[in-house]
Amino acid sequence: MTTLQDCQALDAQDALRPLRERFALPEGVIYLDGNSLGAQPKAAAARVAEVVQQEWGQGLIRSWNSAGWINLPERLGDQFAPWIGAGAGEVVFTDTTSINLYKVLTAAARIVRADTREDAPGRRKLISERSNFPTDLYIAQSVCQEYDLELVLLEPEEIAGALQADVAICMLTHVNYRTGAMHDMAAVTAAAHAQGILCVWDLCHSAGAVPVDLRGADADFAIGCSYKYLNGGPGSPAFVWAHPRLINRFWQPLSGWFGHAEPFKFVPDYHPAQGIQRYLCGTQPMVSMSVLQCGLDIYTEAEQFGGMDALRAKSLALTDLFIQLVEERCQGHGLGLATPRAHAARGSQVCLTREEGLGIDGQDSGAYAIVQALIARGVIGDFRAGSGATSQDGKGGGTGLHKDILRFGFTPLYVGFEDVWNAVGHLRQVLESGEWKRPEFNTINAVT
Amino acid sequence: MTTLQDCQALDAQDALRPLRERFALPEGVIYLDGNSLGAQPKAAAARVAEVVQQEWGQGLIRSWNSAGWINLPERLGDQFAPWIGAGAGEVVFTDTTSINLYKVLTAAARIVRADTREDAPGRRKLISERSNFPTDLYIAQSVCQEYDLELVLLEPEEIAGALQADVAICMLTHVNYRTGAMHDMAAVTAAAHAQGILCVWDLCHSAGAVPVDLRGADADFAIGCSYKYLNGGPGSPAFVWAHPRLINRFWQPLSGWFGHAEPFKFVPDYHPAQGIQRYLCGTQPMVSMSVLQCGLDIYTEAEQFGGMDALRAKSLALTDLFIQLVEERCQGHGLGLATPRAHAARGSQVCLTREEGLGIDGQDSGAYAIVQALIARGVIGDFRAGSGATSQDGKGGGTGLHKDILRFGFTPLYVGFEDVWNAVGHLRQVLESGEWKRPEFNTINAVT
Repeated sequence: MTTLQDCQALDAQDALRPLRERFALPEGVIYLDGNSLGAQPKAAAARVAEVVQQEWGQGLIRSWNSAGWINLPERLGDQFAPWIGAGAGEVVFTDTTSINLYKVLTAAARIVRADTREDAPGRRKLISERSNFPTDLYIAQSVCQEYDLELVLLEPEEIAGALQADVAICMLTHVNYRTGAMHDMAAVTAAAHAQGILCVWDLCHSAGAVPVDLRGADADFAIGCSYKYLNGGPGSPAFVWAHPRLINRFWQPLSGWFGHAEPFKFVPDYHPAQGIQRYLCGTQPMVSMSVLQCGLDIYTEAEQFGGMDALRAKSLALTDLFIQLVEERCQGHGLGLATPRAHAARGSQVCLTREEGLGIDGQDSGAYAIVQALIARGVIGDFRAGSGATSQDGKGGGTGLHKDILRFGFTPLYVGFEDVWNAVGHLRQVLESGEWKRPEFNTINAVT
Repeated sequence: MTTLQDCQALDAQDALRPLRERFALPEGVIYLDGNSLGAQPKAAAARVAEVVQQEWGQGLIRSWNSAGWINLPERLGDQFAPWIGAGAGEVVFTDTTSINLYKVLTAAARIVRADTREDAPGRRKLISERSNFPTDLYIAQSVCQEYDLELVLLEPEEIAGALQADVAICMLTHVNYRTGAMHDMAAVTAAAHAQGILCVWDLCHSAGAVPVDLRGADADFAIGCSYKYLNGGPGSPAFVWAHPRLINRFWQPLSGWFGHAEPFKFVPDYHPAQGIQRYLCGTQPMVSMSVLQCGLDIYTEAEQFGGMDALRAKSLALTDLFIQLVEERCQGHGLGLATPRAHAARGSQVCLTREEGLGIDGQDSGAYAIVQALIARGVIGDFRAGSGATSQDGKGGGTGLHKDILRFGFTPLYVGFEDVWNAVGHLRQVLESGEWKRPEFNTINAVT
C-alpha cells in the first residue's frame, strides 16, 4: 500500500517542483481543475498592471508599435509552436476555440469542394465523436449546413472503421474532455490520409498536457485553447495551426483586416496574407493576450527542467497514483474508472464514474453531490453530467463515456504527489461519512 | 478672434469637467486619438488587479459563477444599451467587430434568401461605401462570396439613389472613419426599408460619441467596438445588436456553445438561445472584458451630468472650435477640411486634408510627417493615407474622402477646450517652423 510518506518522497524527488512556485495557488485548495481553467501565474499580476497602466495608460495608441501589440498573436504562436510540434510562423493565438474551429473547418470544406471532381465525388461526410466537446459539434453542424456535408457522430471505437472514401473531414478532439481518453494522432491521421480525408484536431485538452507532434503526425489543421493547461487566464485567446501545404490554398471566411496581406494599406479589396496570418481576423484583446504570455513563459522555463518528457512522466505518475489510491482507499462506493489505464491512451486527467441509483434520491448517481462536497473541502475538481446518449441509443454505457463523471485534472506544473494523497483522503472521507448527502451539495446550480 | 482665455473660460463652465478626472492621461500629452484607442479609466488598474489576483487567482474556476463571468457579456450589453437606443436583452459584448459583422451579415443574407421567392427574386446586391473601414468590406466580400451576392461600393452621395429593389443589404458605417462624416441613420434606414432592404450599421465611430437611436431609426442590425470612445482598453470585446423582429429568425453560423439555449447541458445538437445570446459563440476574454466595464461605468456616471445630450453639445463645441482655430491660425499651409461643417453630418472627430505635392519630396502631401511632428510634441492624432481611389476611378477627390488625412478625435469625456487651443498652437508651430520636414518625421513606420 502506498503511504503519505511515499507521496512526500515523490515530491522531494520531483525535478519539476520549482515550477509550482511560479503559481499563486490559494491556501487550503488542492486544485484539480486546471483542465478547465488553469491556475494564475504569479507573474500575471505585474504584467497586467504594466499593460494597463504603462502600455495602455501612458503609451496609448503608440503601444500598438512600441509595446509590440501589433504582432503579439504571431510572437506567442512562435513561442508555443514547439510544444505542439509546429514550426515557427505556423501558429497564431487569436479569437476563441470555437471561432478558430470554424475557420479551419470551412477552409477544409473549401479544399474538399475544390478537390472533389478529380478525387472523390461522393465525399460528403464530416465525422466526429458523439462525446466530443459540444461546441465542436455545434460549429461542425453549422459548417455542414453551409457546405452540404453530413455530420456523422460515432463512438470512439467506430472511428477507425468509418475512415472510408465517403468521408471528407475527420474532426477529433485529441484528448476527450469527459474521459481523458487520448487518440493516437499519428495513426488516425495516417488512416484518414490513406482514404484522402482531411484531419482537424482539437488540442484543448492536450496542448501543454501531453506530447503533441502535429508535423510528425502529418496533421492538416489544429486548434486549441490557452486557458486550461497553458494557464493563460479566463477566456484567454485560443490558437490555430494549419499545415503549410494547405494554409495558402483558401481564405477562411472570417476575412478581417488582421488577416490581410497589408492591413494598414486600407485598400478596399481583401488579399489574404501568406501563411498563418490569414487566420487572424479582428483586433485582439491585448490585456488578456498579454497575460497569456505569463502562462506560456512557464512552459518556456520548463524546457530547462526536461520539457514535455518530464511533464508527461510526472503527469502519468500523478494519474497512476490517483487511480491506485482511489482503488485502494475508496472501495465499496460504486466508483468506476472512465479513463484508460494504458498510458498511450490517457491524457492528463482522471475521470471517475459512479453507478446510477446511488444518489440521494435513488435516481441519479450522486456524482454531482460528491464533487460539491469535495469543493467545500477545498478539493476542486468538476462534474460533467451524463450525456443521455445511453438512454437515447444504447451506446457507450460500458465505457463510461456517456455517464455522469467526476473529473480531476492533474497539471504537472503545479500539482504534487502529496496533493494526490490528500485529495483521495478527502474523497474517502466524503464517501464514508456520507457528508455528500447534505442538501446544500444536492442543489444544482449553474455548472461551468 | 478666439483667445486662450476664451478656451479656459469654456473649460471653467464645462459641466462634464469632473469626468476628465476619471481618466489616467499621461503628463504632457494632448490626446486626440480616442477615436482609435480610448484613454485608460483610472478604475481599470484596481479592477484588473482584482480580476487577476482575486477572481482568477483565488476564485479559480468557481469565479465563472461567483464573480459573474458567465453572463458578463449580457450584463455589459444591458448597461450600455440605452446609449445606442437599444432595449435590455438586445445587446451583448463579445468577440470582435469583424466577427460580429460576419454574424449579422450572414444572418441578414439568410433572411434575404429565405424571403426571396415571394419578395424580390432579383435582390442580389450588398451595397456599401468605398471608403468604409476596410475590414467591413473584407467581411462583406466573404459573405457575398458565400451567399452569391454582389458587393457594390459607392461614394456616399450615390447611396440614396442606389437604394432600389435589386439591393438585399445596405451596410454602412454611421460615422466615416476617415472624414467623420455622419449618415442620417433614420432617413437612410427608412429609404432602404421602403425598398425592402435590410440595414446593417457599424457604430465603431459613433457608439458613445454621437446620439444613436437604433430602435428609433428602426435599424435591423448593428455592431461596434468598445476600445474607441467607450474606453474599454486595447482590443476590448465588441458589441452586437439585432432588432427583436429579426433576431430569432436564423442562426448566425458561428454557433458556439455560449449561443446555445442550454450551454451546460452538453447536448450534441445545437439549439440556439432565444434572443441576442445566440450571437455569442465561445469563451470570452474575461480579463479584457472586466476592464471594459470600467469604461462603460463612466458612461453610466455621465448620465448624472446630462448624458448624451451634454456629451454631444460639448463634442460639437470642441470640433467647431478646432475647425475655427485651424482656419484662423494655420492659414497658408495647404490644409483643407474633410469633415462636414453641418452639425447633423459630423461625428466627434475633425479630419484635415493637405494638398498633394506639398510634402518634403514634392510628391506626397506631407500629412504623415506633420502628424509625426505633432506626436513628438505630445499632440497625438493620427494619419490615414489616401486610399488611391482617386487615381483608380476618378471619384471622391473633391470631398477629401480618398485623400491623405490628418485625423483628430475629440472625446468630450476627457478632452477640454484649452487642449484644443494648445493642439492648434502646436500645429501652427509645426507648420510655420517647418519642423515637420525633419527626416525622422518622414520615415514611414508601421501605422495603426
